[in-house]
Amino acid sequence: MARRKKVYEGKAKILYEGPEPGTLVQYFKDDATAFNAEKRATVEGKGVLNNRLSEFFMTGLNTIGVPTHFIKRINMREQLIRAVEIIPLEVVVRNVAAGSIAKRLGIEEGTPLPRPIIEFYFKDDALGDPLVAEEHILAFGWATQQDLDDMVSLGLRVNDFLSGLFLGVGIKLVDFKIEIGRIWDGDYMRLIVADEISPDSCRLWDIETGQKLDKDVFRRDLGDLADAYTEVARRLGVMPQREPGPTKPTLIN
Amino acid sequence: MARRKKVYEGKAKILYEGPEPGTLVQYFKDDATAFNAEKRATVEGKGVLNNRLSEFFMTGLNTIGVPTHFIKRINMREQLIRAVEIIPLEVVVRNVAAGSIAKRLGIEEGTPLPRPIIEFYFKDDALGDPLVAEEHILAFGWATQQDLDDMVSLGLRVNDFLSGLFLGVGIKLVDFKIEIGRIWDGDYMRLIVADEISPDSCRLWDIETGQKLDKDVFRRDLGDLADAYTEVARRLGVMPQREPGPTKPTLIN
Ligand SMILES: Nc1ncnc2c1ncn2[C@@H]1O[C@H](COP(=O)(O)OP(=O)(O)O)[C@@H](O)[C@H]1O
Ligand SMILES: Nc1ncnc2c1ncn2[C@@H]1O[C@H](COP(=O)(O)OP(=O)(O)O)[C@@H](O)[C@H]1O
Ligand SMILES: [Mg+2]
Ligand SMILES: [Mg+2]
Repeated sequence: MARRKKVYEGKAKILYEGPEPGTLVQYFKDDATAFNAEKRATVEGKGVLNNRLSEFFMTGLNTIGVPTHFIKRINMREQLIRAVEIIPLEVVVRNVAAGSIAKRLGIEEGTPLPRPIIEFYFKDDALGDPLVAEEHILAFGWATQQDLDDMVSLGLRVNDFLSGLFLGVGIKLVDFKIEIGRIWDGDYMRLIVADEISPDSCRLWDIETGQKLDKDVFRRDLGDLADAYTEVARRLGVMPQREPGPTKPTLIN
Repeated sequence: MARRKKVYEGKAKILYEGPEPGTLVQYFKDDATAFNAEKRATVEGKGVLNNRLSEFFMTGLNTIGVPTHFIKRINMREQLIRAVEIIPLEVVVRNVAAGSIAKRLGIEEGTPLPRPIIEFYFKDDALGDPLVAEEHILAFGWATQQDLDDMVSLGLRVNDFLSGLFLGVGIKLVDFKIEIGRIWDGDYMRLIVADEISPDSCRLWDIETGQKLDKDVFRRDLGDLADAYTEVARRLGVMPQREPGPTKPTLIN
């Protein structure tokens, strides 16, 4: 492949300049991090799985009319996306109490929430991505009231879609995080779903057993992360094409 | 004084049943606590000063039509108040970055905020009074959208009044915390300012020197807390009546 300019390297992905203006290539690494990158590991195959799964979720969203940055998958680890101006907020949608909200508000993990709760976290690794209120977002100009309303709408639509999708394969969507960015069609600005949707950014519990099929397997040392993600991909019928392994000659007869 | 029933003893105050239904007596203790009561001390005279100062601020607010729980001062340490149903939120109004917002959002202490910022903290000592978004408040039913709008209005009016009051005596109102409660007039519910307004619940900086005249003197070991509060009271012309000390006989020539 031709040499490309690296635009950004993050914890889980690398962005390269895309072939057309306004596009980027998103490369999914095998790096796993948690607790603001205090815990790190390499999980073989994670990048391939997340590339496939994010393609699958984003394609589904595009189909139902929720705009996303996804254009097409390029290969096992890369996809072509629309370049957006990322709003510096992580949008978290929660259906069941788990993780930080359980701790923060003293709710037992696993408690269904009275309704989906949407939270905004200021995307700043140095500050540990603190929870913020709309008040902070508006006062510091990170987004407008219109943006916030649109982000809530997008978050709820993604939640409806993914909740249904996972329910169909026996998985409870506990919560997830998305990032949202701005694109311009001439003077007209609109918001679209960006970054990734994958078991790295969702909490997914098996409905029957409660087994965790998401990044908590890594955060809490509950087993093999790639196995968990493979199970999600398998249930959704999204198995990444295996690279053909070294084939032994087969004895015929 | 007749024996009274204690209704609640908190970190800084005791509530007793009041003489009439719907009233309480609020007794101001000399206890100082900080960092969720991890740091504690007794500061002689603090209760007397805060009783006087809270009377002064609440009376001023009542006068400009901001409803408060304050009815009248009873003695050096006690005031008569309307009993309210406290909304379990601390309402913080900030004009300048200091304390938790400075740390949380990485803003240098002393930086003026782009506009007053109103924050809500869930009043729960065991959880360390966590910051919450309107989203949490609404989802868990701690207050309604109408309540929130009214709380923001009350917070902003209190901020306008106190900012002016302090400016007049060379003090910058950096931030403050109020509690708000519900009272009923028959079927009609409304919100009024409750709890206390005092240097325990404000950040007050001398405009000339930057000297802190509030509870940060205690939190950060910057000197004598009673001296700081006395200075605030002195500037506002609110010196508590001294109990006459032991008088020595005076020689008349
Ligand atoms: N469509 C897009 N256009 C521009 N930036 C994007 C887009 N989608 C995701 N990003 C950004 O690319 C980066 C993805 O890399 P990642 O490893 O997740 O980074 P980080 O460690 O910052 O989370 C993130 O900073 C994300 O905000
Ligand atoms: N008008 C009122 N009616 C009922 N409760 C009140 C009123 N004003 C304040 N309170 C409550 O009385 C208590 C005051 O005592 P304090 O020592 O400040 O307690 P805490 O340690 O809980 O902050 C607080 O719990 C406060 O919410
Ligand atoms: Mg990321
Ligand atoms: Mg209190």
